[in-house]
Parts: sequence; C-alpha cells; structure tokens
Amino acid sequence: MNRSEDDVDVAEAVHRTAEDIGSMEIRGAATIAAAAAKALGEQAAASEAESPEEFRAELRAAARVLYDTRPTAVSLPNALRYVFRDVEGETVERLRASVRASVSEFCRRLDTAQKDLGRVGANRLRDGDTLLTHCHSTDVLACVETAVEQGKSLSAYVKETRPRNQGHITAEALTELGVDVTLIVDSAARRYLNEVDHVLVGADSIAADGSVINKIGTSGLAVNARDRGTPIVCAAQTIKLHPDTLTGQTVDIEMRDEREVISESEEREIGEITVLNPAFDVTPPRYVDAIVTERGQFPPESIVTLMRELFGESTSEPWTET
Amino acid sequence: MNRSEDDVDVAEAVHRTAEDIGSMEIRGAATIAAAAAKALGEQAAASEAESPEEFRAELRAAARVLYDTRPTAVSLPNALRYVFRDVEGETVERLRASVRASVSEFCRRLDTAQKDLGRVGANRLRDGDTLLTHCHSTDVLACVETAVEQGKSLSAYVKETRPRNQGHITAEALTELGVDVTLIVDSAARRYLNEVDHVLVGADSIAADGSVINKIGTSGLAVNARDRGTPIVCAAQTIKLHPDTLTGQTVDIEMRDEREVISESEEREIGEITVLNPAFDVTPPRYVDAIVTERGQFPPESIVTLMRELFGESTSEPWTET
Amino acid sequence: MNRSEDDVDVAEAVHRTAEDIGSMEIRGAATIAAAAAKALGEQAAASEAESPEEFRAELRAAARVLYDTRPTAVSLPNALRYVFRDVEGETVERLRASVRASVSEFCRRLDTAQKDLGRVGANRLRDGDTLLTHCHSTDVLACVETAVEQGKSLSAYVKETRPRNQGHITAEALTELGVDVTLIVDSAARRYLNEVDHVLVGADSIAADGSVINKIGTSGLAVNARDRGTPIVCAAQTIKLHPDTLTGQTVDIEMRDEREVISESEEREIGEITVLNPAFDVTPPRYVDAIVTERGQFPPESIVTLMRELFGESTSEPWTET
Amino acid sequence: MNRSEDDVDVAEAVHRTAEDIGSMEIRGAATIAAAAAKALGEQAAASEAESPEEFRAELRAAARVLYDTRPTAVSLPNALRYVFRDVEGETVERLRASVRASVSEFCRRLDTAQKDLGRVGANRLRDGDTLLTHCHSTDVLACVETAVEQGKSLSAYVKETRPRNQGHITAEALTELGVDVTLIVDSAARRYLNEVDHVLVGADSIAADGSVINKIGTSGLAVNARDRGTPIVCAAQTIKLHPDTLTGQTVDIEMRDEREVISESEEREIGEITVLNPAFDVTPPRYVDAIVTERGQFPPESIVTLMRELFGESTSEPWTET
Amino acid sequence: MNRSEDDVDVAEAVHRTAEDIGSMEIRGAATIAAAAAKALGEQAAASEAESPEEFRAELRAAARVLYDTRPTAVSLPNALRYVFRDVEGETVERLRASVRASVSEFCRRLDTAQKDLGRVGANRLRDGDTLLTHCHSTDVLACVETAVEQGKSLSAYVKETRPRNQGHITAEALTELGVDVTLIVDSAARRYLNEVDHVLVGADSIAADGSVINKIGTSGLAVNARDRGTPIVCAAQTIKLHPDTLTGQTVDIEMRDEREVISESEEREIGEITVLNPAFDVTPPRYVDAIVTERGQFPPESIVTLMRELFGESTSEPWTET
Amino acid sequence: MNRSEDDVDVAEAVHRTAEDIGSMEIRGAATIAAAAAKALGEQAAASEAESPEEFRAELRAAARVLYDTRPTAVSLPNALRYVFRDVEGETVERLRASVRASVSEFCRRLDTAQKDLGRVGANRLRDGDTLLTHCHSTDVLACVETAVEQGKSLSAYVKETRPRNQGHITAEALTELGVDVTLIVDSAARRYLNEVDHVLVGADSIAADGSVINKIGTSGLAVNARDRGTPIVCAAQTIKLHPDTLTGQTVDIEMRDEREVISESEEREIGEITVLNPAFDVTPPRYVDAIVTERGQFPPESIVTLMRELFGESTSEPWTET
Repeated sequence: MNRSEDDVDVAEAVHRTAEDIGSMEIRGAATIAAAAAKALGEQAAASEAESPEEFRAELRAAARVLYDTRPTAVSLPNALRYVFRDVEGETVERLRASVRASVSEFCRRLDTAQKDLGRVGANRLRDGDTLLTHCHSTDVLACVETAVEQGKSLSAYVKETRPRNQGHITAEALTELGVDVTLIVDSAARRYLNEVDHVLVGADSIAADGSVINKIGTSGLAVNARDRGTPIVCAAQTIKLHPDTLTGQTVDIEMRDEREVISESEEREIGEITVLNPAFDVTPPRYVDAIVTERGQFPPESIVTLMRELFGESTSEPWTET
Repeated sequence: MNRSEDDVDVAEAVHRTAEDIGSMEIRGAATIAAAAAKALGEQAAASEAESPEEFRAELRAAARVLYDTRPTAVSLPNALRYVFRDVEGETVERLRASVRASVSEFCRRLDTAQKDLGRVGANRLRDGDTLLTHCHSTDVLACVETAVEQGKSLSAYVKETRPRNQGHITAEALTELGVDVTLIVDSAARRYLNEVDHVLVGADSIAADGSVINKIGTSGLAVNARDRGTPIVCAAQTIKLHPDTLTGQTVDIEMRDEREVISESEEREIGEITVLNPAFDVTPPRYVDAIVTERGQFPPESIVTLMRELFGESTSEPWTET
Repeated sequence: MNRSEDDVDVAEAVHRTAEDIGSMEIRGAATIAAAAAKALGEQAAASEAESPEEFRAELRAAARVLYDTRPTAVSLPNALRYVFRDVEGETVERLRASVRASVSEFCRRLDTAQKDLGRVGANRLRDGDTLLTHCHSTDVLACVETAVEQGKSLSAYVKETRPRNQGHITAEALTELGVDVTLIVDSAARRYLNEVDHVLVGADSIAADGSVINKIGTSGLAVNARDRGTPIVCAAQTIKLHPDTLTGQTVDIEMRDEREVISESEEREIGEITVLNPAFDVTPPRYVDAIVTERGQFPPESIVTLMRELFGESTSEPWTET
Repeated sequence: MNRSEDDVDVAEAVHRTAEDIGSMEIRGAATIAAAAAKALGEQAAASEAESPEEFRAELRAAARVLYDTRPTAVSLPNALRYVFRDVEGETVERLRASVRASVSEFCRRLDTAQKDLGRVGANRLRDGDTLLTHCHSTDVLACVETAVEQGKSLSAYVKETRPRNQGHITAEALTELGVDVTLIVDSAARRYLNEVDHVLVGADSIAADGSVINKIGTSGLAVNARDRGTPIVCAAQTIKLHPDTLTGQTVDIEMRDEREVISESEEREIGEITVLNPAFDVTPPRYVDAIVTERGQFPPESIVTLMRELFGESTSEPWTET
Repeated sequence: MNRSEDDVDVAEAVHRTAEDIGSMEIRGAATIAAAAAKALGEQAAASEAESPEEFRAELRAAARVLYDTRPTAVSLPNALRYVFRDVEGETVERLRASVRASVSEFCRRLDTAQKDLGRVGANRLRDGDTLLTHCHSTDVLACVETAVEQGKSLSAYVKETRPRNQGHITAEALTELGVDVTLIVDSAARRYLNEVDHVLVGADSIAADGSVINKIGTSGLAVNARDRGTPIVCAAQTIKLHPDTLTGQTVDIEMRDEREVISESEEREIGEITVLNPAFDVTPPRYVDAIVTERGQFPPESIVTLMRELFGESTSEPWTET
Repeated sequence: MNRSEDDVDVAEAVHRTAEDIGSMEIRGAATIAAAAAKALGEQAAASEAESPEEFRAELRAAARVLYDTRPTAVSLPNALRYVFRDVEGETVERLRASVRASVSEFCRRLDTAQKDLGRVGANRLRDGDTLLTHCHSTDVLACVETAVEQGKSLSAYVKETRPRNQGHITAEALTELGVDVTLIVDSAARRYLNEVDHVLVGADSIAADGSVINKIGTSGLAVNARDRGTPIVCAAQTIKLHPDTLTGQTVDIEMRDEREVISESEEREIGEITVLNPAFDVTPPRYVDAIVTERGQFPPESIVTLMRELFGESTSEPWTET
C-alpha cells in the first residue's frame, strides 16, 4: 500500500457502507458486492479531485477502505476489481463517467445473475430427470425453479447434510417447487447414484485452478459420482470466483464449533475426544463436469479465463498499485 | 425339501434352541452359531437311530428346524454347514462321534475367533498409526485391542455414522483402550484420508464375489480411500461369509424406519417427502485391500476359496439333500 | 423476438438464400455457413435504411429469417453470430462497411479452414504412424492428406461404422491417398489400439463443456483409447462449435430409421423387438486429448474460450435482442 | 511323450470316438467332453491289462489318441484331466472301477451343468432388471430362462454382434422366453449402459489368470461397463476353463474369413485394403465382476483355484507323464 | 519466407545479437528472450525506412535473422511474437515508438517474472509442508525461496535425477535456503509420495494441449502422484509456452550421449547393447494439477488461452507473413 | 516357544546347518531352503526317540534351531512348514519315513522349480516380443532362457536400477542369451512402455494379500504399466511366498547404506542432508497381471490359496505348537 495516499479524501458514503459491511448489517455475497460497487460510484460522484491522478488515488483509497472490512468475503474484491477494470479517461469527468458506467453495468448484471444462471442450469435438465443435491444453494434452486417453470417434472434425492442439516431447508424449498423429494443420510448417497441423472451442487467459492470449495462432503460425493458415471455440475454465480486464487492463494477452510457435531453431554459420556468440524472441502476440477454461471456453462478448467475476463488479469489488487 | 422326512425324530433340545433363536433370546452372530452347532451335537447324542440313514435323516431334519427360525442370519447356516461338511462314518456310533467332534471343533474355533482375528489385524498396525473407522464393529475393536496390548500407540478418526451414531460407541470403546479419538461427521471423512494409514471397517456379511456388505456409507468411503491411496481393510470372522451368495443369491438390504433419519415434527415442517433409510451397502472387492479373518488375511477375491473350504462347495443346502 | 420488428425490410437475396437452405438445396456445414454470411452481406448492401437503428433492425430481421430455416444446423447460427459480433459504426455507411468486412473475413477464413485445420492435424502425425478412425470425416481426411503431401507414410485401421458403413468411404478415400488401410468391424477396435499411434475422429458438433458429439460409437472407442494409453484427437472446424451449449442446452441425439439396422424380413424372423438406432453419442472432454481446428489445437476444456472469442459471449441470440 | 508306450493297446471305441471328434461329427464343447470321458470309460472296460502299470499306460495312450484329434477344443483336455485326476487303486480291477466312477461322475455333472449354472446366474437377476448382452451364449440364456421361470420379468438390450450378427439369434431366443428385446448396433452399447442393471456375456474359454476369452467386442464393452459403473458377469460352465493357461500358454485368437466383414465386390470398390476379422478378444479379470459357473459364482481372480480343483494342479498333461 | 525481402536492411546490432545467440554466448531462456526483444528494439531505432511498409519489412527481416539462429529455443520466438503482437501505427515514427514500447514492456515483465512466479507458487505452500521435486528448476527454487522468506518452514524429498544427478544441485540450493532435504534415488519416489504435500517440478517447455515437457522421469512421477492423491504442480514462466504447438507441432525429444548413462568400460563388460538416453518426456495435462506462472496459476488445459493472449493467435510465424 | 522342550536332543547335523546359514556360508533362497529341509531329514534319521511324542518334540526343536538363525529369510520357514505339513504316522518309524519322504519331495520340487517356472513364463512370450525388466532376477532370466531355447527371438529394455545398477548384470545375462538389449535410466521406463509387450519382474517375496515385494522402483513402474495398458508379470518361485503375511504381518523394508546413493565427498559438497535408501517397495496386487511360479501362473489375488496349500493354513509356526 502507498502510505502517502493515506491522506486522500474518501467520501462519507464509502465509510458508511464499509461500516455496514463490517457490522454485518450488509451481508450475503450479492448484497455485499452491490453495496461495494455502489460505494465506489458514490466516491466518483462526490469526488472534488482536480486531476485524474487525484481522482484515481481517491478511488483506490475508497476501495481499500471497503476491502479492509471483510477481506474473506469473495464477492467484495470481485465487485471492486470489476469496477476498476474499466476505469478509463483522460479527464476527471471522463473518469467519473467511466466509474459510474462500470458500477451500473455491474449492478445490472448482478440483479439478473441468479435468474440468468437458472436458465443456463435449467437447460441441462430434461423432463423426468432425477437430481441429487447436497447442502443448500439458492443457485441450485434457481436452476430447478426455471426448469419447473418450463414445465419439466423433476424429482430429487436430498442429502441431510450433517451437521447442520441444511438438506432439510433444501427439501422444503424443492417440495414447494413441486419436486418429489427423497431425504437420505449423507452416507446413503452412493447407493442412489445410479438412479440419478445429475448431481447438482452450489459453491462457497471457486478457485482459479477450477477447484470447487463447497460444504464438507461435496468432494467425497463428487468422487463417487465420477466412479458411478453420474455427471456432476456446480451452479455458482461469477461473484463466487475467488480472485486471490489466481495468485496461488489457498482457501482457508473454516473450522466450526464442535457443538454442531455433538452435544456437551454426549461428549462427556464418550470420554476425552477431539471433534473436528470443517465447514467446507475442496473438489478438484477433474471430478466436476461443468460449472454453470450466469455467463453460461464452463468446464472447471476454463473458469480461470472467465475470472480474468471479468475481474482483470492483475495478480495483485488494483487498488494497491501506485 | 424331502417331505417324507417330516416324521423324523428331532431332539427336544433342538426344538428349544430353535425357539430361543426365533424369539431373539439367542442373538448375535457368534452366539447363534454356537447354539445351532451345539443343538446338532445334542441331536446326535440323543439319537436312537438304528441305521446310518436314519441318523442322517434325523440330523437333516434337525438342521431344517434350526435353519427355518432365522434364515437371514448368516452365521446360522454357516454353523450347520460346518458340522455337515465332516459327518462321516459307516455306523451310527461313528457318525455320532463324527458329529460331536465337528461340533466341538467348530465351537473351539468360534471361541477364539475374535481374539485370533485381532492378532492378525493387529499385525498390520504399526506403532504411531492412525486409523479411520465407520460404524461399530467388535472385530475392528479386537484388532485395535491386540495392537494396544502389543504396546502400539494408535490414534483414530471416527465417523459418527448417521443416522444411529454408532460412531459414538466406537469412540467410547477406543478411548477406553487408550486410543486418541477424533470424531467427525460422515461427510468429513475424505478430508482426513491423507492423514490416515488404514481405513478399518467391519462387515455385516461378505459375499462369494468378495463384496463387503456393511453399514451404509462403507462403499462411498472405500471409493474415496482408493482414490486417495489409503489402504482399506475389512475385519470379519469367517461366520460372516455369506454361503448363499456362492449360488449368486444377492443380499437384500434392509430398509429401516425413517424416524431414525428425521423426527415426525421435522418432517411435517418440510412437507411431503419420502425418507429412505437403507441399513447397509455393498462395497465391490476392487475397493478393498484385504479381509482379515481368524484364519488369516485374504484378498477379497480369494475369500470364496475359504468359504468353500469351511462350509462346503455344495451349491445347495446340505440338509435338503436326500 | 421483437414483434414490432416484423415489418422491417429484408432483402430479396436473403429470402432466396433462406429458401435454398430450407429446401436443402444448400447443404453441408460450410456451404450453409457461407451462404448465410453472404446473405447478411447482401442485406447490408441492399439496405435503404435511413438510420443506424433501422439498419440494425433490418439486419436482425434478416438473421431471423435465415436462422428459422434450419435451427439445428450448427454452422448457421455460428455464421450469423460471427458477422454480428463485429458490427460497429455510427452511420449507416459505416455499419454497412463493417458488415461487409465481417462477411468477407468470415468467408475468407471458411475457404481455407479445412486446409488450415489439415496443416495443424498433420503436424501431430509422424512418418510411419498408424491411425485408427471411425465413420467418415473430411476434416480427418484433410489432416491425413496434408501429412501425405509432407511425405509422411501412414497406415490406418478403419472401423466399418455400422449401421451405414461410412468406414467404407473412409477406407476408399485413404487408399486413394496412399495410406495402407486395414478394415475391421467396430467391435475389433480395442484389440488393435496398442498398435495405433493416434485415434483420429471428426465431430458432428462440439459442446461448450468440451464434449464431442460424433457418430455413435465414438465415446466407447474413446474410453477404450484412454484405457489403453492411446491418444485420441478430434478434428473439427470451428463452425462445428455448438453455440447453444454455452447456455446449457443439451444436444438432441437424432434417432434414425431402424431399417438401417435390420431389414424388415430379418426383424420378422426374430419376433417382436424394438430397434434403437441413435445417430450420435457424446464423448466427455476427459476422454479426448485435443481438438484440432483451423485456429490451432486446443484441449477440449478450453474450446469454450474459442467459442466465445469467435461467436460472442452473449448467452442469447444477438438477432433477437432489441 | 513316452515313445515306448506307442505299442500299447487302445480300445477300438476310443479310436472311433477320436475319429468322430476329428471329423467334427461330434461337436460342441459339452458333447465333445462327454464323448471323450466315455471313451476313457470304454477303454477301462475293455482293458485286458495284466498289471496296474499296463492299465495306466493304456489309459494314457487312449487319452493321447483323443487329445490329438482336436487339441484346441478346451473341453476335451478338461474331460481327460477330470477322469485322470481321480484314478486310484492298487489292482487293475480297482483302477477300472475308479475310472468308471470318475467318468460317470463327470457325465452326471455335465448333464446338469447348464441348468445348475442357470440357477446360479438367475439368482443375480431381480424382477424388472434390464440386461445387455453380446453375441450368443446358451449359458447366458440358461440364466435368463431360469429367472423367467422364477416369475421375474426382464428386458434386454441385444448387440447385433457384427460381423455374423449372432445377436439376432439371441434376440429371437430371448423374445421366445418373453423378454422385451431392444436390438442395437455394437457401437451403441455405451449409450445404453446407464439404463442397464447387468452386462451378461458368455465365454469361449477362461484363462487361469481370470481373463475371459469371448467374441470380439467383449473387452471393449467390459471397459465401458466398468467406466459407467455397470456390473459385468460372465456365464461359463467349468469345461470352458482353459487348462493350458495354468502353464502360461496364451490363447490363440482365430482369424476368420474376411468375407464375413465385407463382400468381394464391396472390397473391390474400395481399393486395395487388408481386412482383419479376429473372432475373439481377451477381457482382463479386473473388468469382470463375477464368473457364474455350475459350481457357483467366482471372482475371476479365484477361478484358477476351481480349475486346479477340478482338473488337477499338474502343469503338464497327465497323459504324457510316464 | 518472402524471398524478395532478402535485400532489406537489417541493423548491425541485430546481426551481432544473432551471432551471440548462435555461438551460445547468449544462453538461458530468459537471457535469449531479452536479447532478441532488445535487438528488435535496436532495429526499430536504427531504421531509416521511408514508409511503414519498408519499416515492417525490415522488422520481419530482423526477426527472421534472429529466429534462424536457434529455432529450437522456445523463448526466442516467444520474444519475437510478443513484440510483433502489438506493432501498430500509421507512420514510421508511430511504428518505431510502438516497437520500443512493446520491447520495454516485455523486458520489464521478464525482469520480474521469476520473482512474480515465486510469489504465486509460494502462496500454495503452507508452513510445515513437504515437497518432492525432480531435476533442477530455478522457477521451483523461486517458489521455495519466497515461501521461506515468508517465514514458512519446509522440507523436501529430492530425486537424484539420473543420469546427470541435477538433484544434487537442487539439494544444495534447498539446503542453503534452510529447507530440510532428503535425497532419494529416482525409483524411491513413489514410496514417499504419501508423506508429501506437493510434487513441484519445472518445465523445459509447455505445449498448447497443456502437456508439460520436462526432464525424463517427470511423467512417470506424475502418474504415481495422481495415483497416490498427491497434488502435482509445474512452475514455469510464460516464455516456456511452446508457440509452435498451437499448430499441432510435436516437440522433439533430444537424445543425449549414452556416456551419461554408462561408461565405455562398463558397456564393454556388458556386451553389445543399445543405450537410449532421452533428455525429456511429456506429461499429459490430466496428470498435472496446476501450472504456476508469473501471470498467476492455471489449470494445464487453460494454458492455451494464455499462450494466445501473450504471443498472438496466429498459427504461423508473424515474421514470415508478407 | 515351549521352554520345557529345550532339553530335547537335536542332531549334530542340524546344528552344523544352522551355523552355516547363520554365518552366511549357506545363502540364496533356494540353497537355504534345501539345507533346512535336509537338516530336518537328518534329524529324523538320527533320532533315537522312543515315542512319537518324543520324535515330534525333537523335530520341533530342530526346526526352532534352524528358524532362529535367519528369521527374515522367507524360504527358510517355507521349507520347514512344507516338511511339517505332511508329518504323519503313529510310530516313530512311520514318522521318520514320512519326514524323509516329505524332505525328498520338497528337494525334488526345488531342484526343478526354476526350470519349471521358466517354462510357464516362456509360454507367455511370443516370437518377436519386447520385454522391459527391472533389477536382476534369475527367475525372470529362466523365463527368457526357455523362450530363447524354444526359438523365440526377443528384445528387452533394461532399467539400470539405481543405486546398485543390477540392470547391468541383467543386461549382460540377456545379451549372452541372444536378446537385443537396450539400457535406459530408471526414469525413462514410462517413455518406452508403449513399445513393450510385457513388463517382467522378479520378487523378493510375495505377501498373502498378493502384494509383490521387490526392488525399489517396481511399484512405480507397475502403476505406469497399468496406466499405459502394458501387462506386468512377476516371476517368483513358491519359496518366495511370505508365510508370515498370512497373519497380517507386514514386511519390513530394509534401509540400506546411504553410500550406495551418494559418496561422502558428494554429500559434503551438498550440505547437511538426509539420504534414504530403501531396498524394496510393495506393489499392490491390482497393478500386477499374473504371478508366474513353478506351479503355474496365478492372479496375485489367488496366491494366498497356493500359499496355504503348500505351507499349511496354520496361522502360527507349526514348530512352536506344543
């Protein structure tokens, strides 16, 4: 970071957005992304910079303020990178216009992303197909919803997804869409893979090497799907593409509270044990057939190209360049 | 079955044992096996047959009475087949002696089988090794116990094994043996496979084609173990070898109560869903490295040879031959 | 579709071309593509539009007329998309020039595509190599022809390719090129894979996920080639890239007449049976080593990038946008 | 061979049987086997040997006469080996009785072998299952027939099996059994594998390393079945076990007339090509789930044990020992 | 090549550089690349061309002079292609400026490429990780060096890499970086793969189909790494991307002197044998998890996109076009 | 061990043999085995036991004396087990005769074992075949020698087999047999696998689970052979079957002197490193196609059956039973 930039003016609106992101008032991948992009737009609107250089320095400073609030939220840097990618112009006014155009394009895309993704995913599903899904993903639901709207009749095996049983939420949502749901324990998935036409999962994030980071259990399911010849598809909007992984950064896997796995009294009964409760795992690209996004479907090995196209090829954060 | 044999005398002791097996008073694979073998011994002792033919007919009738009480308990026909395999002699007295020798040999073997198996399995484990196990198996515990007695220090990942959480019982038993236990949800198994030296599971039964029938989730785990290069071993006494599978019989997989998976109120909340709760699954031999028995360890593909050696090659039940 | 555009003027030449495509007078992937592109050029030439908006509306209308004649011919939308991708200009004259430049660039590329592809594919072949091929593909022949012209001596196993025996046509064409041909039944392919340096097949179309849609039997051959360690390459011009699959559309597999498989009298002799005669199958990208195009060779997983580069990233048809 | 044994007396009946086998009057694996075994029995009956040594020498000579007529018919040496395995006794009379007992046991087994095998195979099939089969095998049909008799409803995909279309014969036979038959070209098999519960094939012979030698196309089908997770089973009576392979002998693959593949006029039209028409191929044991015999089902890797049990462990022909 | 261009003026500086490259005075991939780019810059500076056409013709001629000195050095055409890709302008002066800007951008990137690559690779490594490496690669060392600078403690298995034992050089360099080194013979690599977190290798060059050409033994190691579930990463700067492979050119594998493998006296003792000493082998992309470059990390299947982006999509050499 | 048996008389000849084995005067698997068996024969001959019990106790004591000299030599316990397996008789004289018969049968088999094995292995080789081999094995050479004697022309790739270059010895021996030899470094093996018809290796020992313990590098070679579709066969006499592994014992892998890998001065130059020099590795049965023994060829998964047949099923040493 360029320390001499610390005195630069950052718009009040940017600080407010940063606070709201930090305090989790603004949450959810898409909501954070939209707020961050708009804050950059407000920075551009409010800027009283007298030179393009000053304008750019302010914009970088604003981005840094936003970025620092939640560096682990994948969608936040994606929004910032998207806006920065297209900032062009030789006068302050042109720069301002360029930022605002970029912000509005980003938000427009974001608004329709899940619906667009749903259409792409739905196209893969045929009338009468059976899905198997893991955990809970609104991107997966969007695919199913569009397919149902197209008049396709679907049924689904839903894994309960221990320890937090998000499968119950998915089961309820699918039932409401008119899908025939069969609930199974996680261990029973392999047994039903031959009756399944598509394994369909979401993603927490997607890495530049095409790996899918998703709820613990996804990778084991994917290996079995490949072994059984059942196609496996990941539905994820492009704001889930993990820009840091372009530079080889590995994705840290959150360890959650052991109480999700076992109650205190149960544990006391068993004796002195360790409980490990990783939230996610990593599925290598060779076990995934396609990644469905709002920009179309991609083999996991090609997702890096889309990532570079949308968020810039730069291997460092554009707001730290001087 | 030969109907003309229905009038044959079957000893009172045989009928008593049959009743106790039927009413589940006698339960557990080994206990049933021992009781059935001893009942045949008592039939031989009590026989007042006047010809070898009559003696044999009585013995077959006794076996049928026993067999019919619980035809799905694998260890019951194995005990009967073991005794029948060696019945030889040209006089009633020689036949009687031969039956009793066979019964006592079978029971002697059975008595020490788990300990013998434990010694074989323990030999595979080295000081400092880490295991991963699924469900609860006393044969697996026997291996660990012997290894611990040999002064080996072990640690273990234990899958909770939804829906009935038998992993908790295993965790407790291993902790008591001084093994460091880490409890994980079933979906987390793949994530820890690279830190594991042996996947060690039991078996409900083993088929003639080398398939391992065991608690639901075993096959999915085995496929992942193979994919990760982690050896997987099944510990099972020979009374678990499924004689009917010699003749191509498939093993029916019990479907258990959906209430094990989800409570009534949870289900009501979700909506109208099906719940499937299969108790077991089938792991093909190519995903298993070895089967550890009290007779030594075998590649799964060779287990059929042991099965024929112990329980006869006959492709029909010896007590139905006339 | 924008209904208000229905009154727009479409040039007579466009209608004539559309008719000829519809009546199959114009046929073959490259011929259709060239005709469609040229028709757009004629539309641009003939346009009397008074505003850029009007010009664009006419062009879209012309494209729709053409597209609707044979929506399943992959090369037709590709030609249209290629032309639309670069239409730029702020006056009618500039737009007209831009369309014509784009059409002529497309046709120029198309003219040399097979020869260019042949050079790329020929570079993979070494003197003395043995190929194995399936069905009949002029793109495959182009590779062989160039290699032969380079003085390389080749031999080939040719699968007869039931039910229509297109292998005979391939065998004849290869023989004329001076290639030593060995004809085998389809089932014999695996037996000769270890004597083969390259499996070389064409494509009916190629999907965005890298799957190769080609004559029935290709996927089974590819799985065996992978199993035997024999590289498998698909030769296909870029007009075979299936733009609809970007949006998850699956490719319908044509079912052909059962009489290709069995004569009426043969069938009558057998009894009441069903005959299924699918024309194509789908080979997943992980079984294909490279796709050879006139733009160079690509791993199948990267073909989506080329598809977007050539035909636009738009996930809907550009001629239906308003 | 012991030349001094050449003068030994061989019964007229043996010479007659040998002639009939040589002239193909006696044909078919089971018929040849039965004839050869009975000829040894007649040799034993007719023997006027005065010492056990002489008797044995005659028997060996008779076996050599029979063996030399058709050394490539697998069932012929199996029949001879089976009889020789149990020849025991210290007097000519005992030897004679032992041979005749062995012959009659062999023939009794042979008589019921296909029906016994059918029962074993039928046990693998469940009501509503779909099979896929290749070529024509009466052992496969025996499994289906028994399953149908048990009241199971089955359907089947039948590959036409170029070049001789034995699939038509199978289709007819299955239709007569009430099985719903769908006929496909060989190349279409992979496309339907996910709708199939069992791939069921016969065998020309089975090698000691568990390899299945069967109609060309079997191995390619098996690799695809494994890739798709569909179990593949081979149905073959034990007389198909190839005793020479115990000693590492490879099985020669017959090359058949090219006219089966292509007519003279078709070939003339194509130009100067080679046509290869191998009758069989070799499927390695790792692609086969089980071998179903009249003695039960076996993993292919265990079949060598059965081979040694039935036909002796000797690594040379017992009739050439002196 | 356009012969009429032979008379074109090529700057003295270009000839000097060409000579130095030809005489191996200038060597090493990066040094050659920088020298070639700078020579083009000097050509542009020295040009007295009077028309853009003349200027371009001179530049092409200069490129040809350079290219012809060492056509097999991958980095040389890459440097030339990089400069040519961006040459634009309608006057000689603009062309001159454009060349010089391109040269200076290329050299700037090249200067920091290894350090940038090192940062990307280092991000994949965690504190406490164990690597396994083959041969000697400064790109691999750059990754390790950065990781060590970040305070990560690493250990490494180093294969000696027969026949030239470059592993010794690697071992020394790693030891100096403070990495705990264990030296093993090449054959021992598989045995230690389960204790290894990353297999990390360099590349001689990388083909458009994602194949890694590297020191003999890399592909066998990669297949074992995949089999054991150990990730394998290739570290290679983008000047290693092999532009000719875009057009299907295969990479010739150098055969080195047999004396590296065996001394003359040893060979004489053995008898008349052939010794083959290939310098490199080819690892298909499906056995490599990621390629780490100074532009970020990529799945091998996506590297073709980067190649086209950096060095142009042209499937022929830009300096031979007229 | 039964301490009360310590006073039992052991023949002088036994002690002499034990000493010679201990001092390595008697060495080599077959030589040790023959010496041990003969010593038991001499014990039986010299025995002055007055009861069968005494005779057996002496024999056990003799076996213990022999066994304790080199418990890691696999062939030693095999010889002892072979003799013990058949000791039967109710008088001292009968026991004595039974021991001597068993000893002489064992030695007779041993004498011809390598030649018999060679015949089995040679049957797999066809005229014109190319082999690839690793390290030095006289069992492998026996196969080649027999094939050559049968008039087959063979060629071979020989891996040098670092660190001790036993490949040179193999190359010399093969050259003397008239085989065309190509010497390569170990890392180059994969590159030539597609030109190879058989990978043929020996074994240090073979475990009950079918694993092949052989010179370091065998398992990595086998994985590559499987990946390339090249069959891999292990040639090993039955005295190499490791009886302890029946009981799950793992085979300890000898670590050899680091000076075999690197000289002291080379190591000093590199810096402080560890050198690991494991002598052997373990190839799992699924990577081996067949094990060729003097008793015929077996799938690795069936070798346990042969092991039990030859050396008894007992899971403890027969000479320690009391």
